[in-house]
Amino acid sequence: MISFLNDYNALACKEVMEDLTKYSLEYNVGYAQDIHTISAINLIRKELKRDSDIYFLAGGTQTNRIGLYQMLKPYEAVICVETGHINVHETGAVESTGHKVLTTKGKDGKLVLSEVDEVLALHNNSHLVLPRAIYITDSTEIGTIYTLKELKEISDYAHKHNLYLYLDGARLGVALNAKENDIALSDLAKYTDMFYIGGTKNGAPLGEALIINNEELKNGFSYLIKNQGGLFAKGYLCGIIFESLFTNDLYNKNAKNSLDKANKLRNVFKKHNIKEAYENPTNQIFVYLTDSQAEYISKYALFELWEKKEISIYRFVTNFNSKDSDIEDFDNILSKL
Amino acid sequence: MISFLNDYNALACKEVMEDLTKYSLEYNVGYAQDIHTISAINLIRKELKRDSDIYFLAGGTQTNRIGLYQMLKPYEAVICVETGHINVHETGAVESTGHKVLTTKGKDGKLVLSEVDEVLALHNNSHLVLPRAIYITDSTEIGTIYTLKELKEISDYAHKHNLYLYLDGARLGVALNAKENDIALSDLAKYTDMFYIGGTKNGAPLGEALIINNEELKNGFSYLIKNQGGLFAKGYLCGIIFESLFTNDLYNKNAKNSLDKANKLRNVFKKHNIKEAYENPTNQIFVYLTDSQAEYISKYALFELWEKKEISIYRFVTNFNSKDSDIEDFDNILSKL
Amino acid sequence: MISFLNDYNALACKEVMEDLTKYSLEYNVGYAQDIHTISAINLIRKELKRDSDIYFLAGGTQTNRIGLYQMLKPYEAVICVETGHINVHETGAVESTGHKVLTTKGKDGKLVLSEVDEVLALHNNSHLVLPRAIYITDSTEIGTIYTLKELKEISDYAHKHNLYLYLDGARLGVALNAKENDIALSDLAKYTDMFYIGGTKNGAPLGEALIINNEELKNGFSYLIKNQGGLFAKGYLCGIIFESLFTNDLYNKNAKNSLDKANKLRNVFKKHNIKEAYENPTNQIFVYLTDSQAEYISKYALFELWEKKEISIYRFVTNFNSKDSDIEDFDNILSKL
Amino acid sequence: MISFLNDYNALACKEVMEDLTKYSLEYNVGYAQDIHTISAINLIRKELKRDSDIYFLAGGTQTNRIGLYQMLKPYEAVICVETGHINVHETGAVESTGHKVLTTKGKDGKLVLSEVDEVLALHNNSHLVLPRAIYITDSTEIGTIYTLKELKEISDYAHKHNLYLYLDGARLGVALNAKENDIALSDLAKYTDMFYIGGTKNGAPLGEALIINNEELKNGFSYLIKNQGGLFAKGYLCGIIFESLFTNDLYNKNAKNSLDKANKLRNVFKKHNIKEAYENPTNQIFVYLTDSQAEYISKYALFELWEKKEISIYRFVTNFNSKDSDIEDFDNILSKL
Repeated sequence: MISFLNDYNALACKEVMEDLTKYSLEYNVGYAQDIHTISAINLIRKELKRDSDIYFLAGGTQTNRIGLYQMLKPYEAVICVETGHINVHETGAVESTGHKVLTTKGKDGKLVLSEVDEVLALHNNSHLVLPRAIYITDSTEIGTIYTLKELKEISDYAHKHNLYLYLDGARLGVALNAKENDIALSDLAKYTDMFYIGGTKNGAPLGEALIINNEELKNGFSYLIKNQGGLFAKGYLCGIIFESLFTNDLYNKNAKNSLDKANKLRNVFKKHNIKEAYENPTNQIFVYLTDSQAEYISKYALFELWEKKEISIYRFVTNFNSKDSDIEDFDNILSKL
Repeated sequence: MISFLNDYNALACKEVMEDLTKYSLEYNVGYAQDIHTISAINLIRKELKRDSDIYFLAGGTQTNRIGLYQMLKPYEAVICVETGHINVHETGAVESTGHKVLTTKGKDGKLVLSEVDEVLALHNNSHLVLPRAIYITDSTEIGTIYTLKELKEISDYAHKHNLYLYLDGARLGVALNAKENDIALSDLAKYTDMFYIGGTKNGAPLGEALIINNEELKNGFSYLIKNQGGLFAKGYLCGIIFESLFTNDLYNKNAKNSLDKANKLRNVFKKHNIKEAYENPTNQIFVYLTDSQAEYISKYALFELWEKKEISIYRFVTNFNSKDSDIEDFDNILSKL
Repeated sequence: MISFLNDYNALACKEVMEDLTKYSLEYNVGYAQDIHTISAINLIRKELKRDSDIYFLAGGTQTNRIGLYQMLKPYEAVICVETGHINVHETGAVESTGHKVLTTKGKDGKLVLSEVDEVLALHNNSHLVLPRAIYITDSTEIGTIYTLKELKEISDYAHKHNLYLYLDGARLGVALNAKENDIALSDLAKYTDMFYIGGTKNGAPLGEALIINNEELKNGFSYLIKNQGGLFAKGYLCGIIFESLFTNDLYNKNAKNSLDKANKLRNVFKKHNIKEAYENPTNQIFVYLTDSQAEYISKYALFELWEKKEISIYRFVTNFNSKDSDIEDFDNILSKL
Repeated sequence: MISFLNDYNALACKEVMEDLTKYSLEYNVGYAQDIHTISAINLIRKELKRDSDIYFLAGGTQTNRIGLYQMLKPYEAVICVETGHINVHETGAVESTGHKVLTTKGKDGKLVLSEVDEVLALHNNSHLVLPRAIYITDSTEIGTIYTLKELKEISDYAHKHNLYLYLDGARLGVALNAKENDIALSDLAKYTDMFYIGGTKNGAPLGEALIINNEELKNGFSYLIKNQGGLFAKGYLCGIIFESLFTNDLYNKNAKNSLDKANKLRNVFKKHNIKEAYENPTNQIFVYLTDSQAEYISKYALFELWEKKEISIYRFVTNFNSKDSDIEDFDNILSKL
């Protein structure tokens, strides 16, 4: 069975596992004060070209939840597109900290500033929540990516309107390594107030690196993590993982493998006249399949129903571990369709 | 440098690391629906002799926070001893979910029911919080353990007074394997409403197994975990870890090593006329040291200042990885004191 | 200056003020345990024909916030129309208790069940919030009212889908006394799980009567009110007010005056060819006015801009204190337009 | 039956009721933007000699809850004495906003700074909550009052240690008018960051005036009030009340009546050899009564059991409405004891 199910269905890449094994009996101080965590922070800061605060958290929902909680006063709200992960797929995690998620339609999974204008125009007095942050994802929930120009525009807009900019980088690796991309980590450090570099979906067994760029947001964050149950006793677990990912370009290497296999998979679909629903340059491929096509393919490969329709949309995802042989085998399967 | 710093300063025991490596490229479904998680649950249930619900969470504070949150309505409170971990060392994590922690003095780190009587007598109307749960730890924050008789009495008392009983098992391994212990996992399944089996402090890189015994508390818990940011995408990470810990008696084996080394360390202290502050049968040894003694020892071993006094109390902790040679070396160090 | 600004811009009707004055120096026990509160509860229960629990709270936002908080577990959500008061005009009060507000388009300010179907279909697993309550208002934010048939259908639907039904009755008086209305208080007691009878917008200086019909929701509510800062020391303040409102049919009398004046005001608008934007049978009249019309009228009367457009919508509201002379004067003003 | 039950058992003094009646049909804009509210704010500011922000809230628990919520980040805590109202008698209202209440023993109901030192020494890292505010009451829960010297010392201490100072003035009227008092409203404006002037217990039907002196705490407070359900639609209700209380010295006049009657009542107790438990100069008198004494008196007067003991403590409270004849009658009753 070939797996295109998602990008978090294999535990960890070889290099990360080797490092974890290597250091498994080494003594380290707890709570993220250890040398691996410090080293990982320094490795990341070098790429950020900025003295940002960096914290390692377990997963995406936890990171979004605690990061946005740090940004917002009780009556403040965050704006995102309707399809935003925090709005739909986090079981109300942001609301659980007391904050409303305000939504806009968006376009191709990306934020449209003229729509944010409308939200701000409506929310102009103390009987409505006070918009205070913008949340975007890169790559987005449907695989699209932002350009540097768009990022700058959103950043300028946000800061002009007294909004913080938060970027969810659960799939940042494939975004930054996509062919069309012109954004660097140092741009994110410059243009966002907070963002995270996702490990879980790029070859780590767990872990996201939350980056706080804005000085106003740095104070007290270690307290908040503990208060919200996000602090690891063995903080060096994530320290070792991110030290590994940011050594020898492993983070990019993992992402590039996902992208390479995704592009090959795209060609296979094209070859077999299967049409993409949301064209995008990253590792999530959304295609239209008839029920019988889907049924046939499901005998040989794992993938996910995305949206039930007359001709439904299905999602195929490549990952750090996807192989050329997976694509070749899949090509053969489709040939018999 | 010998480390008696704590029981979470080495990442993971050999067997767990081997299993993680073995399964590192295996495809698994996400969010704790995988075969390793199911297998781990079954292995634990066999010891519980009960069809409890079992969830794997990252760490102790997160587990206490989400577990107690499931138990309590907004105006309800939990009772524990003043030294209780939730009362002191979790940065207000329980209060962050809206709940007051009511405290009693306790004795030897353990709950005294006559003191709980006083709390209940005071809290008798709707102008005060409604006590609804009792929180105990085994082993306690100062290393002592409960007897089966005490556990039963607290359980009977709790249920008679409409209180849930929650047991924090961050150090449950050493408690259940202590020489004086007469409690089995199946007793905890029978007498508590919820408890957890700590992995982090017993050889796992992370992970606590939260056990819900009371039917009333089972409903909706998977929603709450996600809502509070506690769900792992790669749920099989903890699945593999606990499958490993509950295979070939590894969980007990790790605890027994901690206990064996602790008892040997106790003898070394005794031999050198260093007195224990809180006598207890588990892996935390609290001793009185003069400033000069502490200073001398700190050149050779890692340990922690517990309480600053004229003659201060220091904590030495053994772990799954402690070695006979550590104790022997330490004996030699003390000989030169 | 004639005031059609809203229905909470005059403190209290004569009868309520007289009763407050009459009892102002009488000694009463605190915290809603007094004889006036008991009497008010009994008077309302008689109309409900049900042994519901009844609590008096300060205002609408507080009542919605605490009422829905009692209904929902941390990960549960409430469904309402986009224009729902809790969704827009309560500064995120429901979210402040941790709960997401899920919205549907609705029609004429009222809930459409087929749209709720879509929400339930989407929210089918623990990665999304769990819908657990439906919130409706009567009269709605744009003055429309539900029929008994609609109320029954929504109630049946809700209970079939394990949802509670909550009805916001901030303007219940004008809804129940509208000519087209066929709902009685006893129907609300039968078909909703919780609802409130608004006092503030019907002649009381403050106060809403929250009615809990569903036994499951009764437990612990007095604790929740205090915990959320909603309990009055002088509970008899609201006791006297609602005793007054439910004596000699005062509650209906106040509402009928609002309706009578509203209908007369409608005729005046019609006579002067000013068109209603949202036709409805209650005391909020929404009309299209050109900028110059609005400017002219604003010299003589208070009213509110509702929606800025090319031809904007303005809201005129009558209240317990509106007079025939107000309408006649307004007719004269429009005559000179 | 004479009532010494408490100071909130009669609705309102004559002057307040007359003003409410006078303005009952006057049109006013909602949400505390009206002329009475502005006038009340100006009257109070004149006494504060400071441009503080002032908001009128319904009751003490609500005021403490929202005021402290504005002060504290999620992981921050407030320090008070064990008997502090927020610690005991508010059903966990402060914890409901996520914040731990840290307690000290105190002396005579008042804060002892050396005890606060110990709390600060313990809470010195991010595994414990971060103390960020001190809460005191004047008069205290047992009727004692602070001196200006004590207030200054606490204020200096607080600000030196990066703590805000919050003063609960539920019974501020009797404190400031007590014979021994040397604190003025302007001192509170100078030395506290936030405090409130209690109306409910000094002749108002409801209402507390929350005063924000510290600029850092002013921003966004109107949003927080609405978000927490504390905003009145008819804000002018409290506006009229406080305009009344701060006209013709009514606030002090009410307090002085309470104090005058309390002092006379003290003399009656002394005359009859009934001993005070907590001596204090305000309107709460705590006395030791045997069971038979209490039973006898309870036939003629209302009062409250404060603490059950062998010889129990009972509380007698005077209020704005207490009369010389009440004291004389009570003297006669005690004469027959």
